Amino acid sequence: MNGSPIRLGLLGCGTVGASLLELIAAEADDIEARTGLRLEVTRIVVRDTAKARGAAVPAELLTTDAASVVADPDIDIVVEMMGGTDPARLLILDALKAGKAVVTANKELLAADGPEIFAAEAAGVDLLFEAAVAGGIPLVRPLRESLLGEPIERVMGIVNGTTNYILTRMTEGGASYADALAEAQALGYAEADPTADVEGHDAGAKIAILASIAFGVQVTSADVHLEGISGLTADDITYATRKGQVVKLLAIAERAPGGDAISLRVHPMMLPHTHPLAAVRESFNAVFIQGGAVGDLMFYGRGAGGRPTASAVLGDVIDAALNMRKGSSASLGQLGSATLRPIDDLQCEYYINLDVVDRPGVLAAVAGAFGAHGVSISSMEQEGLGDEARLVFVTHLARERDLQATLAELRELDAVRHVGSVIRVLGAEAEQR
Amino acid sequence: MNGSPIRLGLLGCGTVGASLLELIAAEADDIEARTGLRLEVTRIVVRDTAKARGAAVPAELLTTDAASVVADPDIDIVVEMMGGTDPARLLILDALKAGKAVVTANKELLAADGPEIFAAEAAGVDLLFEAAVAGGIPLVRPLRESLLGEPIERVMGIVNGTTNYILTRMTEGGASYADALAEAQALGYAEADPTADVEGHDAGAKIAILASIAFGVQVTSADVHLEGISGLTADDITYATRKGQVVKLLAIAERAPGGDAISLRVHPMMLPHTHPLAAVRESFNAVFIQGGAVGDLMFYGRGAGGRPTASAVLGDVIDAALNMRKGSSASLGQLGSATLRPIDDLQCEYYINLDVVDRPGVLAAVAGAFGAHGVSISSMEQEGLGDEARLVFVTHLARERDLQATLAELRELDAVRHVGSVIRVLGAEAEQR
Repeated sequence: MNGSPIRLGLLGCGTVGASLLELIAAEADDIEARTGLRLEVTRIVVRDTAKARGAAVPAELLTTDAASVVADPDIDIVVEMMGGTDPARLLILDALKAGKAVVTANKELLAADGPEIFAAEAAGVDLLFEAAVAGGIPLVRPLRESLLGEPIERVMGIVNGTTNYILTRMTEGGASYADALAEAQALGYAEADPTADVEGHDAGAKIAILASIAFGVQVTSADVHLEGISGLTADDITYATRKGQVVKLLAIAERAPGGDAISLRVHPMMLPHTHPLAAVRESFNAVFIQGGAVGDLMFYGRGAGGRPTASAVLGDVIDAALNMRKGSSASLGQLGSATLRPIDDLQCEYYINLDVVDRPGVLAAVAGAFGAHGVSISSMEQEGLGDEARLVFVTHLARERDLQATLAELRELDAVRHVGSVIRVLGAEAEQR
Repeated sequence: MNGSPIRLGLLGCGTVGASLLELIAAEADDIEARTGLRLEVTRIVVRDTAKARGAAVPAELLTTDAASVVADPDIDIVVEMMGGTDPARLLILDALKAGKAVVTANKELLAADGPEIFAAEAAGVDLLFEAAVAGGIPLVRPLRESLLGEPIERVMGIVNGTTNYILTRMTEGGASYADALAEAQALGYAEADPTADVEGHDAGAKIAILASIAFGVQVTSADVHLEGISGLTADDITYATRKGQVVKLLAIAERAPGGDAISLRVHPMMLPHTHPLAAVRESFNAVFIQGGAVGDLMFYGRGAGGRPTASAVLGDVIDAALNMRKGSSASLGQLGSATLRPIDDLQCEYYINLDVVDRPGVLAAVAGAFGAHGVSISSMEQEGLGDEARLVFVTHLARERDLQATLAELRELDAVRHVGSVIRVLGAEAEQR
């Protein structure tokens, strides 16, 4: 099985690239002993060859010329870790066209242009992307391979570490959203502009990729309905805790009951504290999968960070290298076109928080708005706040469009000062959808 | 990609086999659409062809002649679901020799004779066994492929659903061990003779297989140190709960710090309630993996049951079929010989429960026994029980042989009526080993 080394060209050398170089240096002998493969990094494309880099990055391999690396007949596998859609998109397509295997950690690109890129992969060369979703967690390969014959019903993930850290601080430390965000920023978990994380864009990109694999369909991040966590308050979290629930930002892809339509969405959700996702704390990620035969599965681990992500990239590199030696390649198979279920058709239980004027008849008016749209109330709590009162409702299973119509009517009522948080609840009824 | 169907011969047709037949019937069209593969079950080996079976089992395919199925040149993949070491062992070896791919769910066989069977697989035909460990959880493939380059430090699993159910009832329902076991038996989770589950034999077989893959070494179930849960009391569980801990039966394979020796063992362990394994309830299984680069990972799901296990078997069947079409095969690679770390060398924190005579000087005598063997005490609690007292100790990190010597000395003390449970504690110190 031994032969010439497998030569790698790296596009990009930030945190993940440096960790990958360290990992290859440390593990190359073990990998060779187990597989007969010798991995050798041949060239590394960076923007600035003069920039100081760690000892793991050999200066003599650096170049700024990405096109020549992609075209280099001596390079077997292109490892793309630049991120962003351009120029990564064309470089990956060119590498695949040139018959090179490609390993990428590029979530944005696959979420935006997945159908085009996956079609290029179908030509018989490997395109592997374990690191693009949920960092170090082996999730893409199990979905592509182990669960290919499984009738998957739902994929539901905590796939953004920043928001999970913020929600953990709010839940366990009683912090406000603003304080928890500031803490996450101080620790480097959140960006100065946290929009991509807290408004669900990052999670939306990841669930688009997961849905493509889990359901074998062509979808992109533009197909995902997004709601973030920036409107959540300490009161919402306190209510959830008191009810034995935990609030998590979930990215969800599910098949509508009795049909092929797929619902794709990111939003906060209240979960029972006994749900496996409820125990996912701090900046950890986890993806919970429900299948018709296999039942409930969950994959848990580090969703980001240089070394976990490099571990996933290395797994793909070894896989691609083994496939090359065998003259084989992985394939996603044919992705069909997707029928998307509009968010208006969703059925869920809802938590709704209203500030109202504290006077007789208000509850009747509010309850009337729910009733007028056929939204049935499961529980109600009232709390006085001076001349105001706060009403907290949880509904039975209701259709999103009826709930939205109810909220619109509530906003028009004189007695309603403010419609606060609206959070979906994973209740016993929602489990049946 | 389309061609003649992939023909399957099934050895055994109990719960898993019937579920597999149902699943193939339901999903064959979807699988063909995604992969171009048509799966066709050609023959089914059973002990009694006259026995009544469900509608999913076509009577005309039944035969009692296993040898002819294994030798049949028209059969591409042999799916072994008989269990037990004989005659499964020879049938699998014959099938591999005949160049057929083999998919097996046979934990006993792989744990007992893994090195022999894995060596036969190394000849270039697929031997896949996802279903042999942790039922429906995709775990073997991620370990074999995604994590092949990862420096794995520890694999720690709840891999026996029966004992996890019993421990969950003791923890959440305050049940005694005997009552929880009786409940598990009534529900069909535990056998009339529960020894294989409650004394750790089943978990030991599974960790032997996992260690083979995770560390690339030849080990068998005989190499695993076993301790079960039958000695645990409601008091032990109550103590753990009060300290924010949960008791789980863990199967552990870990590399000793700074060396290649591997420790293989099954025993109850106290975990902090915030540990991801602590949230694994009822009869669910989960395997927690710590890697030098990837950090903490966990895989969670159903460890048993016809449909989850059939899902894992089907994933392997599709994988083997795709490999055949590509003229490829999976391989575990070369398994090295293992250096085993004796249990005596283990370092751990320990919980120890002693019934002593309640009189002055007893604590000094007991503490002296710990001190004489260099076992340092981290905390002690005393509780009066008439003229007796119960002492509960938790130690700092101690070496197993020193702890055993301490226990031997304690048993000799007049003042010690009874040495009760000894439970290892996954504390902050143990994390550093």
